[in-house]
Amino acid sequence: MTGQPGALRFELLGSEGAARAGRLHLPYGTVDTPVFMPVGTYGTVKGMTPEELAGLGAEIVLGNTFHLMLRPGAEIVGLHRGGLHGFMGWQRPILTDSGGFQVFSLATLRQIDEDGVRFRSPVDGASVHMRPETAMEVQRALASDIAMAFDDCTAYPASEPQARESMQRSMRWAVRSHDHYYRDSPPGNLFAIVQGGMYEALRQESIEALSQRDFPGFAIGGLAVGESEQERLRVLDYVAPRLPASRPRYLMGVGYPQDIVGAVARGIDMFDCVMPTRHARNGHLFTAGGAINIRNAIYQRDTGPIDPQCGCSTCRRYTRAYLRHLDQCNEILGVRLATLHNLHFYLQLMRDIRSAILAGRFAALAAQVLAIPRRLAVPVA
Amino acid sequence: MTGQPGALRFELLGSEGAARAGRLHLPYGTVDTPVFMPVGTYGTVKGMTPEELAGLGAEIVLGNTFHLMLRPGAEIVGLHRGGLHGFMGWQRPILTDSGGFQVFSLATLRQIDEDGVRFRSPVDGASVHMRPETAMEVQRALASDIAMAFDDCTAYPASEPQARESMQRSMRWAVRSHDHYYRDSPPGNLFAIVQGGMYEALRQESIEALSQRDFPGFAIGGLAVGESEQERLRVLDYVAPRLPASRPRYLMGVGYPQDIVGAVARGIDMFDCVMPTRHARNGHLFTAGGAINIRNAIYQRDTGPIDPQCGCSTCRRYTRAYLRHLDQCNEILGVRLATLHNLHFYLQLMRDIRSAILAGRFAALAAQVLAIPRRLAVPVA
Repeated sequence: MTGQPGALRFELLGSEGAARAGRLHLPYGTVDTPVFMPVGTYGTVKGMTPEELAGLGAEIVLGNTFHLMLRPGAEIVGLHRGGLHGFMGWQRPILTDSGGFQVFSLATLRQIDEDGVRFRSPVDGASVHMRPETAMEVQRALASDIAMAFDDCTAYPASEPQARESMQRSMRWAVRSHDHYYRDSPPGNLFAIVQGGMYEALRQESIEALSQRDFPGFAIGGLAVGESEQERLRVLDYVAPRLPASRPRYLMGVGYPQDIVGAVARGIDMFDCVMPTRHARNGHLFTAGGAINIRNAIYQRDTGPIDPQCGCSTCRRYTRAYLRHLDQCNEILGVRLATLHNLHFYLQLMRDIRSAILAGRFAALAAQVLAIPRRLAVPVA
Repeated sequence: MTGQPGALRFELLGSEGAARAGRLHLPYGTVDTPVFMPVGTYGTVKGMTPEELAGLGAEIVLGNTFHLMLRPGAEIVGLHRGGLHGFMGWQRPILTDSGGFQVFSLATLRQIDEDGVRFRSPVDGASVHMRPETAMEVQRALASDIAMAFDDCTAYPASEPQARESMQRSMRWAVRSHDHYYRDSPPGNLFAIVQGGMYEALRQESIEALSQRDFPGFAIGGLAVGESEQERLRVLDYVAPRLPASRPRYLMGVGYPQDIVGAVARGIDMFDCVMPTRHARNGHLFTAGGAINIRNAIYQRDTGPIDPQCGCSTCRRYTRAYLRHLDQCNEILGVRLATLHNLHFYLQLMRDIRSAILAGRFAALAAQVLAIPRRLAVPVA
């Protein structure tokens, strides 16, 4: 499929151990990997313009099929040239999730059967029937560069029989997703999602089931759902090397900088997470020395930047005292400046990771990032 | 006083009838008049960065003494180089109000006597004593290019004796403000505020009282407080020509585009109002054909811009359908894009007014603006 208009091409440019540096060629542009995709739930990365995202070096964003399907509806997005690209004014690549995760985490009065899921819309209470075919049609209308197969998200914790039933349904839905998605042109790119919970044998069965169709990329689902870090790394250690080396690998919904580095070390190429944007709205700012919370009274009279080592426009222009004040006053500008800083932190981390892999010094960088404390740094006055 | 460092210089460059075009030279830069000053209540024009404001052509913003005094406090702003300029990252002129208006409209348990006003802070309930001298010290710490005298804002409606008592107190406070403000260096610029309610004789008495000190500019207070348009224009017709022609004239808190044009026609040079920014947050967008409300369901599938005649970046890049969607989802980006559009509308209006005065075609422009309906335009589907 690679080489067709609309279909992706993935170049591997270097590696260090299992860590890979590559480049993904997509209909709307190229994406250097490992990549972090800012999350644009409702057709906007909260608080940011497309120009700002591009200025930060974002090369791809994630759009939420579930949310956009319910509001404003795929048909309204589809009235815009380039679908979601035109709607949100982002002329670079977009990956859309399938909506599966949100159906299982947000919808109420959910009834699942072999055909799909019926639920009440959290927006207006309407009854919605979502099938793998629905998810494909919505993603086609959104015109994303990469679409995701519709899956049944396994709960955590789950017994082996529960995880098996859920995984097997996801695999049947993946085949239906593939058949329906590729009925249409342009060719496009539908990624498969490996499921199977915390069970290696089920993960193996899932990978085998997905080989029934030719998927151009693979996601690892069912992680970052409440399991311990140790469990997550065990599953990653099992799954990642069993995925086709020539295809991009995407770990959904992860995570902290430390988690990203750990997953890159295991061969993951793509990440998305609401953490930098959501944390910014809660005053939680990432720095080279660990995260700080700008609401802390200690910053009230602090005329230094968030992070003296950071080159983002927030750190170049504004003091901690000002950012704390904006947060205290619930000013929109505070959210903007904090979001910009956190996204810069994540995107710079990914650039650093990629350069390090290409230069053969990823192990050293990883050790440095893993040493950053996860808890909030307590500053010394 | 003009020519001293820190003191303003006001050039009159042209006129048409009573309408004037000029240029105000201030410590942080020059300001073309007539000018509209976006309001930056808490040290931020809500939702906008200083770079965006400058990009829109804003040359001066207004800061609120009352709000900044209570949160974060003048002392914390004063830790920043250039006071409020450094705190908010705005390296162009700033005018600060005196806090008088907010003391009288927002503070509770207010006790007024000759010395000043005691009230409870709406932020933390603390007892605050605000005297003319306090207002001057706070504005000195904020380091604004133009400060305002502390005044007792006359209620509306007010009887003649009530308006007289309030005006006379304001005049005594204006003298105390002037004495205290000019104790300090650099010289700075303190504007007087004419009061007197709807009574011409009291307005005349106020103007005479203010001639006890040499004020570099004059504001007209006590308007836009609930009076009819007819009353406001009657007072303006009386007061404006009685102010020194060589000094800038500032009509506080006005208003709609139609109000601004009407006041320019009567010789006003400076304006501020929360209308473009506050209306934007309510989905109310200004256009050449009248205002629209983007929440209207008629825009759900509308792929046109807010205003086809508008050159702002919101109108160049986004559809009404997208802006309505952002509003429906309470997305910060919706507020940003709407605010940017409305401020562009106001600032472009001021540029158009100024060019028209200099070209001798202001009367025609004024007629055109006055013909724009004030009520929301009802679009045809």
